[in-house]
Amino acid sequence: MTERRTDAQRRHDPTVRGFASDNYAGVHPEVLAAIAQANGGHQVAYGEDQYTEHLQRVIRSHFGQTAEAFPVFNGTGANVVALQAMTDRWGAVICAESAHIHVDECGAPERVGGLKLLTVPTEDGKLTPELIDRQAYGWDDEHRAMPQVVSITQNTELGTVYTPDEVRAICEHAHERNMLVHLDGSRIANAAASLDVPMRAFTNAVGVDVLSLGGTKNGALFGEAVVVINPDAVRAMKHVRKMSMQLASKMRFISAQFEALLARDLWLRNARHANTMAKRLAAGVRTVDGVEILYPVQANAVFARLPHDVTERLQKRYRFYFWDEAAGDVRWMCSFDTTVEDVDGLVEALREEMRR
Amino acid sequence: MTERRTDAQRRHDPTVRGFASDNYAGVHPEVLAAIAQANGGHQVAYGEDQYTEHLQRVIRSHFGQTAEAFPVFNGTGANVVALQAMTDRWGAVICAESAHIHVDECGAPERVGGLKLLTVPTEDGKLTPELIDRQAYGWDDEHRAMPQVVSITQNTELGTVYTPDEVRAICEHAHERNMLVHLDGSRIANAAASLDVPMRAFTNAVGVDVLSLGGTKNGALFGEAVVVINPDAVRAMKHVRKMSMQLASKMRFISAQFEALLARDLWLRNARHANTMAKRLAAGVRTVDGVEILYPVQANAVFARLPHDVTERLQKRYRFYFWDEAAGDVRWMCSFDTTVEDVDGLVEALREEMRR
Amino acid sequence: MTERRTDAQRRHDPTVRGFASDNYAGVHPEVLAAIAQANGGHQVAYGEDQYTEHLQRVIRSHFGQTAEAFPVFNGTGANVVALQAMTDRWGAVICAESAHIHVDECGAPERVGGLKLLTVPTEDGKLTPELIDRQAYGWDDEHRAMPQVVSITQNTELGTVYTPDEVRAICEHAHERNMLVHLDGSRIANAAASLDVPMRAFTNAVGVDVLSLGGTKNGALFGEAVVVINPDAVRAMKHVRKMSMQLASKMRFISAQFEALLARDLWLRNARHANTMAKRLAAGVRTVDGVEILYPVQANAVFARLPHDVTERLQKRYRFYFWDEAAGDVRWMCSFDTTVEDVDGLVEALREEMRR
Amino acid sequence: MTERRTDAQRRHDPTVRGFASDNYAGVHPEVLAAIAQANGGHQVAYGEDQYTEHLQRVIRSHFGQTAEAFPVFNGTGANVVALQAMTDRWGAVICAESAHIHVDECGAPERVGGLKLLTVPTEDGKLTPELIDRQAYGWDDEHRAMPQVVSITQNTELGTVYTPDEVRAICEHAHERNMLVHLDGSRIANAAASLDVPMRAFTNAVGVDVLSLGGTKNGALFGEAVVVINPDAVRAMKHVRKMSMQLASKMRFISAQFEALLARDLWLRNARHANTMAKRLAAGVRTVDGVEILYPVQANAVFARLPHDVTERLQKRYRFYFWDEAAGDVRWMCSFDTTVEDVDGLVEALREEMRR
Repeated sequence: MTERRTDAQRRHDPTVRGFASDNYAGVHPEVLAAIAQANGGHQVAYGEDQYTEHLQRVIRSHFGQTAEAFPVFNGTGANVVALQAMTDRWGAVICAESAHIHVDECGAPERVGGLKLLTVPTEDGKLTPELIDRQAYGWDDEHRAMPQVVSITQNTELGTVYTPDEVRAICEHAHERNMLVHLDGSRIANAAASLDVPMRAFTNAVGVDVLSLGGTKNGALFGEAVVVINPDAVRAMKHVRKMSMQLASKMRFISAQFEALLARDLWLRNARHANTMAKRLAAGVRTVDGVEILYPVQANAVFARLPHDVTERLQKRYRFYFWDEAAGDVRWMCSFDTTVEDVDGLVEALREEMRR
Repeated sequence: MTERRTDAQRRHDPTVRGFASDNYAGVHPEVLAAIAQANGGHQVAYGEDQYTEHLQRVIRSHFGQTAEAFPVFNGTGANVVALQAMTDRWGAVICAESAHIHVDECGAPERVGGLKLLTVPTEDGKLTPELIDRQAYGWDDEHRAMPQVVSITQNTELGTVYTPDEVRAICEHAHERNMLVHLDGSRIANAAASLDVPMRAFTNAVGVDVLSLGGTKNGALFGEAVVVINPDAVRAMKHVRKMSMQLASKMRFISAQFEALLARDLWLRNARHANTMAKRLAAGVRTVDGVEILYPVQANAVFARLPHDVTERLQKRYRFYFWDEAAGDVRWMCSFDTTVEDVDGLVEALREEMRR
Repeated sequence: MTERRTDAQRRHDPTVRGFASDNYAGVHPEVLAAIAQANGGHQVAYGEDQYTEHLQRVIRSHFGQTAEAFPVFNGTGANVVALQAMTDRWGAVICAESAHIHVDECGAPERVGGLKLLTVPTEDGKLTPELIDRQAYGWDDEHRAMPQVVSITQNTELGTVYTPDEVRAICEHAHERNMLVHLDGSRIANAAASLDVPMRAFTNAVGVDVLSLGGTKNGALFGEAVVVINPDAVRAMKHVRKMSMQLASKMRFISAQFEALLARDLWLRNARHANTMAKRLAAGVRTVDGVEILYPVQANAVFARLPHDVTERLQKRYRFYFWDEAAGDVRWMCSFDTTVEDVDGLVEALREEMRR
Repeated sequence: MTERRTDAQRRHDPTVRGFASDNYAGVHPEVLAAIAQANGGHQVAYGEDQYTEHLQRVIRSHFGQTAEAFPVFNGTGANVVALQAMTDRWGAVICAESAHIHVDECGAPERVGGLKLLTVPTEDGKLTPELIDRQAYGWDDEHRAMPQVVSITQNTELGTVYTPDEVRAICEHAHERNMLVHLDGSRIANAAASLDVPMRAFTNAVGVDVLSLGGTKNGALFGEAVVVINPDAVRAMKHVRKMSMQLASKMRFISAQFEALLARDLWLRNARHANTMAKRLAAGVRTVDGVEILYPVQANAVFARLPHDVTERLQKRYRFYFWDEAAGDVRWMCSFDTTVEDVDGLVEALREEMRR
């Protein structure tokens, strides 16, 4: 083997971490071990393997007996597959103006699914029944794309978290109007950790019909899943997944990762750690004069407003992004592998740069 | 760690293999090692990582100095991203009636890209300039979708292989008519192994503009790449990939796999082995009376016509599929991990079942 | 009025007619009179007017008590609206390789509706249960676009006509396989005239679910209609029509035209005349040595094979098109306003040119 | 003829008019006369007729020597054809939140063209460079749909009118950012009449690249046109029109209508009349205590806020619509055939109902 080995080499420094995004992190070692364990021999492709079969049990233990998981490649894929399966050709989706599906997917919902998004401005990324009503009307009006789904993000793109009661109110409101509810849960584990409740508490227990279950930002190598809680909410999921180019041939490797995360508590450990690091970061930042924290820090994101020159200097020391460059708002994300030293280092660096 | 370990378990027998498809196999150990090596620390998401940067060098060593790779999730994704980037909204793609993009992607080209496929029946899955001419006309006729791309598959869905000269003739013919050439190379390694030439010999050397480079069927865990050889053949590749939901956040893990496969010769070893096994299988099958082999066995697929009862009994012993159930045609695929014992076992089992 | 008149002028010679297409003709005077009669005052836009309401009665008198008409702008619109309303996002449509939706609509079904067309080669433009079976399979296979509709053209693009029994056999075959039947009737009047039966005889009486009802080629100024015979075959027709940009604001003027055509027998007079002219033309052409007529002349089209030089010279005298330039096939179409003199003139001209 | 006449009858009272919409009106008699004049004989279908050829001259006299008109069926069609021809697959369109393309076309831009609309809230339906900047960024960010076009409506959906200088500022701003400008001119004639300038003054003279030219609301039977002022702003217009199902076969009848409207001054007479009626209506309404007029009355629309019970009673006497039912806002539209008696009658009826 020595002679024929590949030339693949380590090309990065594995001790360097930043605060740019939770998808800058790699794979959790236990997830990688599960992939290795699922390797070898042949398994039926396209989801008829034993890992995907077993995954259904794990999913039902989290999301109830009617739940079924449809693994896909990435978060955009999960969202667009779910929304297509939940809507007719003439359907529209009500969502927050800040929703990932609206601002961060290069128009995939519109281009792949022909989906019309009906957006509502929000204070903190969270919809309410009142906000939904700004777009929830005109079902019989053929001039208007028909609102069929309300899509919420948990936790939101602004790091805020819906309480179970808030989600319940949205679901009841939507269902009374014959609309379904989709939850974009690319960071759902962080929300559960933040609320200290099981994921079911703000999904199947309160009426969510379908969710996008995040794996990648929770420590997976790749892979998300559409979890259908209400089977009547979707049609032809397998066809929709395939025609949306989200059907993995060697699906066992996505399912094995989800098993690693969800069968016991790795998902929660990873999320709790990231949230704890964000709390620590927020606490630290609050000790720095002149820096304003922008939203409640409820999950693994911290938003702050900094002077531009401070941001510029700080970005040379730690990787992170502007959220709103004009306003001077920045976003720091914590991950399953963020360390106390990383956080304290960023706080100290911030303090130094603010003092200059 | 013992206390907190996940409950992920091995759920399959890694010694069982069949002949259903080359994507029933798992990951080659050297590829998995490369993934592990790329893990740890933070790397910029969405393709700005060091592995994807290095991948460009490896790709250029295979496909020439102008080549650039755009890793994606799967083969359908590679094809539809490539074809969208190569066509205008009003464009059409000429392909064989047996092409994967036409028969096996649930209409993804039409639904995601609005692409019109202009198909031609073929004897053996291979297009020729003459066959292309059956659809290559009417560019100025607004009633007709405008033929802008010819898409060929190498090796074809029928296990046949284009010679470099055959591809050259197609490229010249297409280019003279202002059409571009796309090569669906989900099994391109098997074609190169079969022809005993470098991949460049039937791609950049003869005029192919863009190709879909297969990883999964060559021993990867997941991941394919659009390789743009002619930069003028595409526009806005990154936007097209994103809006087509094929942009991996932790892209380093796709790129590291391709490096493992392509930097030295793992790609070729894997393909050669699969091809050798198919040749051995074909030779064995030819010793069984009453079984007809259907196409030239040039890569890792063997097609044969069997009595239905034989197929039924044989499928209880080895997994494989009908190709054309009405005709009694079956397909046996060999993979990088197919063993001599697997092949000889199948031949003997076939002999036994034919004798009953 | 003299002072304020527009400068609009007659810019063509209204005595010149050709054989290029039945849509080269203008409007039948009785249709134009009906438009004028519907003018004046205000009528609710977008189909809530009294003409469209009355049209439903007229339509039911032809197509049965469940029938409902949805006027649209043109034939491509009628087809694509109907097919979208009849299929799910993952649906496919089985049709003849020569179908207008496949070859003559610039990919509108694919681009507007994401529709996958599964085509079958035919001898004479007509599908049969056996031909349908070449594509009618794999409903559970997520890799395949799901066949949900069979679309036939009556009369066909080749001027041939299905008998009621032939359509019945197709409908039964399709329905047994849970597929619906769409009939593209842009020349449906010519088919009825040819068969000498009411239109119902080969539509609602034999199981057709939805049809595209042609107006333009039957003497209208513009306008077609989707006629839904089986209300369970479609969903949200009004939304689909609007989002497909086929909703006319001043719909009264389409509906009034259909009333003019269909309320009594103008539709049939127009079609019979065109068919009679085609029969006369065919009879005349048969007296010319060396000219082969290609398909049964059952409606208002005559296809013939001519020497290229003859075609060229003849086209200088009468407008008509090649159908297949390579083969030398030409098409002559008769219209509601084709005269005996036109036909006899063409025959004589052909005779002269063949003699040169 | 008496014996064979159709049963088409007048089914409405041509003396009844309302204020619901300018497309409730019928056809101007001079336009209908032009249609009749264009009838008879054969003309090449699909736009190669002499009326469409001549239309180009008329169009150039209004919009400059580079202008070319592409007649289509309706306003949604004109907008979506124009925007598709102006954008790439990955393009986005910046428009006002109140734009017709966003709120009133059942998602046609998204569904037919996969277009992403980036909307901005406005006070009065009018964009400004500052408002455009809220969405004009991120051209290199593959996560964002690429802003390629700014679309404005003249006059706006709120009855307000851009001055030439305002349009010029938008065009300069857009062009500096490599974006094109589309003008939705379904009521462009009313804007020109309101400003008392030629249409060119706020289109080609100030940098508009492409416009949707309204015919229907200006007195046509049906028909709009995409007018391409800047030929570099679009590609493959004819293919885009056809694949968008907006290609009329008997196009001569659309072109003849535009000639009737535009060759002399019918377009302007009709628009001026409608605007004058709206001014008279606004003046009358202002004499009624307790009724608030909502936007500047610059064209043929009057918006007012009424008590709900008054609206209900008034709607029994005159047809008109709520604009915002929750707020009590109503819209009254005047048309080319609105009379002084109609207007005065509405004002008196309003006065009476307000008094009850």
